[in-house]
Amino acid sequence: MGDRQADDPPQYYEAHMFVCCNRRPDGHKRGSCAAKGSEKLRDYMKVRAKEMALPGVRVNMAGCLDRCELGPCMVVYPEGVWYRVGSTEDVDAVLATHVRDGGRVPRLMLPPETAAAE
Amino acid sequence: MGDRQADDPPQYYEAHMFVCCNRRPDGHKRGSCAAKGSEKLRDYMKVRAKEMALPGVRVNMAGCLDRCELGPCMVVYPEGVWYRVGSTEDVDAVLATHVRDGGRVPRLMLPPETAAAE
Repeated sequence: MGDRQADDPPQYYEAHMFVCCNRRPDGHKRGSCAAKGSEKLRDYMKVRAKEMALPGVRVNMAGCLDRCELGPCMVVYPEGVWYRVGSTEDVDAVLATHVRDGGRVPRLMLPPETAAAE
Repeated sequence: MGDRQADDPPQYYEAHMFVCCNRRPDGHKRGSCAAKGSEKLRDYMKVRAKEMALPGVRVNMAGCLDRCELGPCMVVYPEGVWYRVGSTEDVDAVLATHVRDGGRVPRLMLPPETAAAE
């Protein structure tokens, strides 16, 4: 599962970013990314990506990505690299270093783990 | 851009599905996926994926994926394969043939193209 096949169409976006914008009620034990400010950071990321004129880039909001305790979190596909973006400076770092330059921002990357089986 | 690097963490989800749930006002010339019923199909896909007990699978709603004219649309990452899912039967086909069996559902796949440069 997850492997590309020889005749799959090319990736439609070169960098498809999903920012978790799920909001839970105040006081929920898991918290939520929106309660930590993710909606404004998603808006900022959209504006900055357009200003930087990065080709093939799409920034989208998403429902709960289920890594709430680590948020505000986002993921860049197809490479599947996850970041915690807690400020506009963090967003700038991901856009410049990861998306524009093809690198990584280790200080913001979520820990290596896979989803718990349900 | 988009390539995995040797020390990237493993993919957190084996199949991460995003269903466009953007809604535009009635009569908008591009239409929208929600206006074509995507929200109920997203809900159905979440339920069915859980019932099928597929490991490492996540179904999320997403903002406008910008392929509105082809919707209701969705994308499966990391492979980045796009589908039009217009009915619960379409959702079942994607879950069974693509996600569970690792195949493709050619009749539902969006045409091979890349995003227009902005």
